[in-house]
Amino acid sequence: MNQHMSKLGFLEKSKLLIIHADDAGLSHSENRATIEALQNGIVNSYSIMVPCPWFYEMATFAKNNPQYDNGIHLTLTCEWENFRFGPVLPASEVPSLVDENGHFFKDRDSLKKNAVADDVWRELNAQIETALNFGLYPTHIDSHMYSIAVRSDIFKIYKNLGEEYNLPVLISSEMMEAVGLDVEVNIDDNDILIDKLHIGKKEDFDNGKLKDYYARVFDNLSVGLNVLLLHPAFDDNEMKGITINHKNFGAKWRQMDLDYFTSQDCKLRLKKSNVKLITWKDIGGTKV
Amino acid sequence: MNQHMSKLGFLEKSKLLIIHADDAGLSHSENRATIEALQNGIVNSYSIMVPCPWFYEMATFAKNNPQYDNGIHLTLTCEWENFRFGPVLPASEVPSLVDENGHFFKDRDSLKKNAVADDVWRELNAQIETALNFGLYPTHIDSHMYSIAVRSDIFKIYKNLGEEYNLPVLISSEMMEAVGLDVEVNIDDNDILIDKLHIGKKEDFDNGKLKDYYARVFDNLSVGLNVLLLHPAFDDNEMKGITINHKNFGAKWRQMDLDYFTSQDCKLRLKKSNVKLITWKDIGGTKV
Repeated sequence: MNQHMSKLGFLEKSKLLIIHADDAGLSHSENRATIEALQNGIVNSYSIMVPCPWFYEMATFAKNNPQYDNGIHLTLTCEWENFRFGPVLPASEVPSLVDENGHFFKDRDSLKKNAVADDVWRELNAQIETALNFGLYPTHIDSHMYSIAVRSDIFKIYKNLGEEYNLPVLISSEMMEAVGLDVEVNIDDNDILIDKLHIGKKEDFDNGKLKDYYARVFDNLSVGLNVLLLHPAFDDNEMKGITINHKNFGAKWRQMDLDYFTSQDCKLRLKKSNVKLITWKDIGGTKV
Repeated sequence: MNQHMSKLGFLEKSKLLIIHADDAGLSHSENRATIEALQNGIVNSYSIMVPCPWFYEMATFAKNNPQYDNGIHLTLTCEWENFRFGPVLPASEVPSLVDENGHFFKDRDSLKKNAVADDVWRELNAQIETALNFGLYPTHIDSHMYSIAVRSDIFKIYKNLGEEYNLPVLISSEMMEAVGLDVEVNIDDNDILIDKLHIGKKEDFDNGKLKDYYARVFDNLSVGLNVLLLHPAFDDNEMKGITINHKNFGAKWRQMDLDYFTSQDCKLRLKKSNVKLITWKDIGGTKV
C-alpha cells in the first residue's frame, strides 16, 4: 500500500476497493444505467464527461445526490464513428485537439501527435471550471481512454490539475503501460499510485467471460488500493447508434456491466469477501 | 397561388405539397426515424439542426443521399428539460442567446426579450456556414419552434439569410400568427409565402386524433403551395429522456408521426388524391 493511504489511516493489510462507473454524461442510456448501478447495484463512485451532450442531466443528478462520489472524467478523445463531440472551449481556441469538423480525434495516437500542451491545459481547465460553475463538488479527476497518458508533458498537466484543484487523481501503472508511458520516469513520491486497476479485457468479452472476470476480481482481490472501472449502459438503440462498428466497450458490453454490478452474484461475493469499499472522497479526505 | 410559384411554371389550380420532417440531427432516434420516413414512407424533404449532438450522423446521411431534399432547421431555442444544447458559436460570443449554462433559452419569450439582433445574425450565419463547410448543399432554410418570428428584426435577418445564400425560406401566415408577428407588415412581394402550413395540434394529439388530422390534410388539400410539418422519431428511451415532462411534440407524438407517414393509409390517400408532391429544390430552382 502506498504511503499516502497509510497516512490516511488505512491498515496495511486492508483490501480496499473503489467500484467506479466511467463515462457518465455520454448519453441518456449511460446516465440511466449509471444511476441504476449506484442506486440498486454496488457501484460507489463515478465520473462525468463534461463535453458530452448529456452532461447537464448527469450533473443535475450529481447536484441532487451528493451522497454518491462523483468526479470529472477529463476528455480529450471521442472514439465513436457517428456520435461526435469536441472540446468545451471553442475549437478555434484549441486547434491542436480537433479534427477538420472541430471534434476530438478518435484515437490516442492522433492526440499524441497533434496536441499542443497549452491547448490541453486550457481545455482540461475549462472542463473542470465548467463543472465547478455548474455547482458540482468533484471528488476526483480521471481520464477518458487514458488519453492524458499519451505523453509525459500531458500527464504532468493532469497531475498538476489535481494539485491546483486539490483533488485526487487516478494514476495506475496498468493505465500508463496500456498507453506506453514509462512508469518509473513519470511517477513521483507524492502521487497516489493505486495498487491495482481492474478493467474488463477484449478477450474476456469476446469469449463471453466478462462476468467471470468480474467475479474473479472479487474473489482474488489483493491487499492495497484497488480500483475497478466499468461502463454501465443499456444495450438500446441510442447506445447501439453511439457504439456502431465498435465492439470494444460497445452497447452489449455495457449492458453486461450494468447487469453484473446490479446482480445478486456480485453482492454476495462482495459480502463474503473481506473487501472494504472506499471512495475517492475518503482518499481525498486530507486534501480538502 | 403566389406569383413566385406561377413564375416557376406551376399551374394555378395545382394542389402542391411538401411533406417535411423537422428536427433531424436532434437525436439518434430522430435520425433513424427521419431516414425510415424518407426511405419507406412519403416524407420527401427534411431539415437538420446544426447545433445538435447528432448533426454529424444526419449530415453524413445527407451527403451520401443527395436525392432527398434537405435544408437547415435554424435553431435559436432548446425546449427540453434535461437535454440541453446551445449555439454553434461560443456562448461568450453570443451572450444574449444563452442562459447561465451557455444553452439556448427554453421558450420563445426569453429569446424575444433578450436576443441582440447582431448575435442572432452571427449565430444563424455560423449554423449555415457549418453545414456548408461540412459539404452539405441545403435546399432551403426553416426555423425550429418558429423562433425566428419572435420579432420583426429577427424575422428580417431570417429572410436576408435566404437572399444571402440564395435559398428559399419557409414563411407562412400560420407560423407568424402562432408567434404573434404581424403578417401585413412583415411580408413583401418577393417572399414565397406558402398558402397553407399544416401541423398537428395539441388538441388532436390529446384527443387521440392526430392520424385523423393527417388523413384530413390529404383529403381536403387546397389549391396552392402546402407544407406539412411532422417530427418523426421512435418512442424509445432516448426520446423519452429528451422529451421528459413535455407531452407536446413528445416521444409518443413523434412515434405516431413516423407510423402514419410510413403507413398504407397515407400512401393510399396520397395516391387517390390529385396532390402533386414537390420539394424545396423545385421551388428554389430558379434561385440556384
